[in-house]
Amino acid sequence: MAETMKTHGAGTLRAADAGSEVRLAGWVGRRRDHGGVVFVDLRDASGVVQVVLNPEDAPASEADLRGLRNEYCISVTGTVRLRPGDMANPDLPTGEVEVVGTSMTTLSAAEPLPFQIDDRVEVDEAKRLQYRYLDLRRPAMQDNVRARSQTIRAMRTVMDDLGFMEIETPTLIASTPEGARDMLVPSRLRKGTFYALPQSPQLFKQMLMIAGVERYYQVARCYRDEDMRADRQLEFTQLDFEGSFWGQEDVLATLEEIATRVTRDLRGVDLDRPFPRLTWHEAMERYGTDKPDIRFGMEIADLSPVFAETGFNAFAGVLASGGSIRGINAGGLGLSRSGLDGLSARAQELGAKGLVWIIAEEDGTFRSPVAKFLNDAELPGIASTLKAAPGDTLLIVADETRTALEVLGQIRLEIGQPDGHDELAYLFVVDFPVFERNEDGDFAPLHHPFTAPVDVRQMREDPGHAISKAYDLVLNGSELGSGSVRIHDPIVQAQVFETLGISDEEAERRFGWFLDALRFGTPPHAGFAIGVDRLVSILQNVPNIREVIPFPKTQSGGDPLTGSPSRVESKQLEELGIEVRAEVRAEWAADEAAGD
Amino acid sequence: MAETMKTHGAGTLRAADAGSEVRLAGWVGRRRDHGGVVFVDLRDASGVVQVVLNPEDAPASEADLRGLRNEYCISVTGTVRLRPGDMANPDLPTGEVEVVGTSMTTLSAAEPLPFQIDDRVEVDEAKRLQYRYLDLRRPAMQDNVRARSQTIRAMRTVMDDLGFMEIETPTLIASTPEGARDMLVPSRLRKGTFYALPQSPQLFKQMLMIAGVERYYQVARCYRDEDMRADRQLEFTQLDFEGSFWGQEDVLATLEEIATRVTRDLRGVDLDRPFPRLTWHEAMERYGTDKPDIRFGMEIADLSPVFAETGFNAFAGVLASGGSIRGINAGGLGLSRSGLDGLSARAQELGAKGLVWIIAEEDGTFRSPVAKFLNDAELPGIASTLKAAPGDTLLIVADETRTALEVLGQIRLEIGQPDGHDELAYLFVVDFPVFERNEDGDFAPLHHPFTAPVDVRQMREDPGHAISKAYDLVLNGSELGSGSVRIHDPIVQAQVFETLGISDEEAERRFGWFLDALRFGTPPHAGFAIGVDRLVSILQNVPNIREVIPFPKTQSGGDPLTGSPSRVESKQLEELGIEVRAEVRAEWAADEAAGD
Repeated sequence: MAETMKTHGAGTLRAADAGSEVRLAGWVGRRRDHGGVVFVDLRDASGVVQVVLNPEDAPASEADLRGLRNEYCISVTGTVRLRPGDMANPDLPTGEVEVVGTSMTTLSAAEPLPFQIDDRVEVDEAKRLQYRYLDLRRPAMQDNVRARSQTIRAMRTVMDDLGFMEIETPTLIASTPEGARDMLVPSRLRKGTFYALPQSPQLFKQMLMIAGVERYYQVARCYRDEDMRADRQLEFTQLDFEGSFWGQEDVLATLEEIATRVTRDLRGVDLDRPFPRLTWHEAMERYGTDKPDIRFGMEIADLSPVFAETGFNAFAGVLASGGSIRGINAGGLGLSRSGLDGLSARAQELGAKGLVWIIAEEDGTFRSPVAKFLNDAELPGIASTLKAAPGDTLLIVADETRTALEVLGQIRLEIGQPDGHDELAYLFVVDFPVFERNEDGDFAPLHHPFTAPVDVRQMREDPGHAISKAYDLVLNGSELGSGSVRIHDPIVQAQVFETLGISDEEAERRFGWFLDALRFGTPPHAGFAIGVDRLVSILQNVPNIREVIPFPKTQSGGDPLTGSPSRVESKQLEELGIEVRAEVRAEWAADEAAGD
Repeated sequence: MAETMKTHGAGTLRAADAGSEVRLAGWVGRRRDHGGVVFVDLRDASGVVQVVLNPEDAPASEADLRGLRNEYCISVTGTVRLRPGDMANPDLPTGEVEVVGTSMTTLSAAEPLPFQIDDRVEVDEAKRLQYRYLDLRRPAMQDNVRARSQTIRAMRTVMDDLGFMEIETPTLIASTPEGARDMLVPSRLRKGTFYALPQSPQLFKQMLMIAGVERYYQVARCYRDEDMRADRQLEFTQLDFEGSFWGQEDVLATLEEIATRVTRDLRGVDLDRPFPRLTWHEAMERYGTDKPDIRFGMEIADLSPVFAETGFNAFAGVLASGGSIRGINAGGLGLSRSGLDGLSARAQELGAKGLVWIIAEEDGTFRSPVAKFLNDAELPGIASTLKAAPGDTLLIVADETRTALEVLGQIRLEIGQPDGHDELAYLFVVDFPVFERNEDGDFAPLHHPFTAPVDVRQMREDPGHAISKAYDLVLNGSELGSGSVRIHDPIVQAQVFETLGISDEEAERRFGWFLDALRFGTPPHAGFAIGVDRLVSILQNVPNIREVIPFPKTQSGGDPLTGSPSRVESKQLEELGIEVRAEVRAEWAADEAAGD
């Protein structure tokens, strides 16, 4: 092999290397010129080491030495030596040594940078994305990239060890009629027709179970064409897995194994197992959400019994119409009157008719705008149910039960959720309903229509209360992923479609090939998909998933680096049998005329 | 955990398990009814074991036992016992034992199958793809799926061990103006604009090098919209890797490591290293192709010197016009006159003006239609150059040198290439030209325009003979992949564009963001991409890559299982700002009117 360009990683040198000849290559960080001797912080993928370039040793021409600038890519040959004791830098892993350069070569010059490569410098995100190749040089971003790679590797190790095979499923698939969020790919060989990019490998992994594979996984790229406001990306990565002759407990045990391994590798922490579990119903009742953050209390309590006989018309009316009265103890908020009114406004914004606050005063009395409507039993009843201590602020919503729970759940988060993710609270939410009502009042599957109901007869007789074998993994208030035991019986599958109001003809047209497949000895099977982006962003304690995606899109789906998406020549579209609609072209023409 | 549905894999049971209670689950293969006792070959992902179901043990109702059909999915509880010595089946890993069922449950029935799950049954490929979930149950296909998974895992192990990080690059990228083979994805948020699916992660991996990552790899899905006649797929998988402060030797050593590991895991064979190398020029001269199959000789020889003074006008004319005369010794073909004429016709079909055959007779004379034009020195000269033995057939093409080489190279393959891939001959082809002439006579990059030339000055002065730092990995006459040392100097990159006739303005428009990136301290870097589909298909010794892709497309890009690609509602297209062109819709209408 030719002489290697690099014998050591800059960040790997230690006192034990003193005396060694090394050849390093990397980037020029901080430079100092001490009377002609140049000190360079040489940075590479492994870290940083100090390099001393003394013109007397003639490591390079005077011009080259003087010409060194930030982020020049250089190669240095030299000798490692111990720094004098008082010059050691305890903050740097290589701080006990430095490399005395005998030869320095500039491999590539760097123009002045749009921003400094320094974690302490705040840079506008648009600029960071435009120069992502520089942004990624920052140590924090290098760490995020490494953590993501480690996470996926840890996942694969667990799956491999458990006997799962990684199998690739297609990404040019059939568009489903309900695929409103499908991204489409026009076909050139069959003009005017389209492939869809997969929202998940769901049906293909079920095919693999029918094919007798038994243990499948894939780190799969998935696509969803949704508005990206909510910290989402058009493309995202999931660890997707499925097992045959498997049930919910097998899946949850596997998830614990995965989460524990990843958390240990990234955080050096061993998680307690089993993870806590809540049924969907408990999660809604206690936290007002199906993805509770259980790092803090402030649980929702049912105050309805306290008001069973109330004379306060607002509350009595809610109870009479089937709603309920829920409250949380927000603790010692110490808010001013206007702060408290702000909470009421926020509750209304979230969809509640209002929010009642009560302050438990130090003297045992209660202060509240509604105090005068409540009797002597009610105020202490609230305080006792919510375990109020002097100084606590109690917040109450009386509304339709679901609204009361969800609004308090959200306010609970806004008041109490810890910043960042130093603490990690994984939990499972199980026993999801099979169906929820959509805006039109029709039943829609809460997970997807291939999820097995716990009790088929109950599902048909009382679909609104039917429980499914679906489960989610939640971490610090974020849903990391969801899964279920799947339907393996074509008759049950047909019954679910029937309950959803899908006719046999429609089911045949939309899912015919899948229903066919179920008819050839489908094994019982179950699985899950974990979102990698979200998991890594939480474990890395960063504010959004773009920090852990090497080349993310902006919230409007653009890439400031490469300029995608972009217009293409109409000739190219013609070959695909499509064209840009006239009104869009007219808009472009108008923009151009306007000099835009 | 709940009681597991399965304690053992059917194929894992051995004599040592005799006496064990087991719970199995799998599919019903062959069944035999011996006087009421039912023998079932139970198959699961691990293999097959014989299960004995005796109605006297009442493992299931009589109806269930009698009702068992091929591919029913069943669960069996029972006891492993040794088969009587004369009943053992040495062809089966589990052949010494059988499981006596004490309980049998049908988990899923199977309708009559469209074809039998049996490697020995030939099934039409269209039907296999339509019922891929059944086709994949065949042991040979299970083995292909497993081999593919093992291959990718072995690749990852090597890359991980060498300190490479797996990093995901985007798959919704910028469409390049020359991206005639780009697949496009319309954007909903920016109507009328398009993403492209990547043909490779090339530019993003170079960005990662600029970002200081140093060691990147990815098992990447790539897309190329080409006619699929040549055993290709619209989407394919590559092991893509790149290293900074790296050169050609680093890449080739890494490739040897990968190929050796994969070959050992799949074939149990240890490859000799280093792999043979040919320069591109040698490969063309000796094999008439840049991807030679070196498992057999039949090398091309230059016969031009033999004919330096020839009186045979056809040959003299070729030499005078700068062409050459090349030949191969095809060995003892024993072809009839019409067989030999067939070879001439084939050579013409391949683009040669003709092909001359010469038979070396047992008596030392030569038989050939052109014998009478050749003098007493020429025939022995040919025979000596081609090392002809009595009975050998010698084939000669006189033409432009490139044509002569390519035609003989192809005929060599058609005559001599071994069937299948029992023997494996890896080699590297190095020192590719920087440019080739396209149909218009302009220079086009032979690899891609980011490939480093060996000598920049020579490239500018004599581009037609310039050599690049590009290299291919070849196995048994198939190119497994290619790579190069990349240009890391923006000035050199600009010079390559200039030689290609790309103006500064055009370079800026097409690659501006990339040229910008090169200006911030780009490290020297090099890399490679290996096609996974081709490699696995050769190692598995199957005739085409569809055999090693779980869910491939047909040659016209369709999926008979799910019906993709398909028409989508115009409302959905409207949201994307596009529509199907009027002439395509008119064709559809005409087809429908014609009852198609």
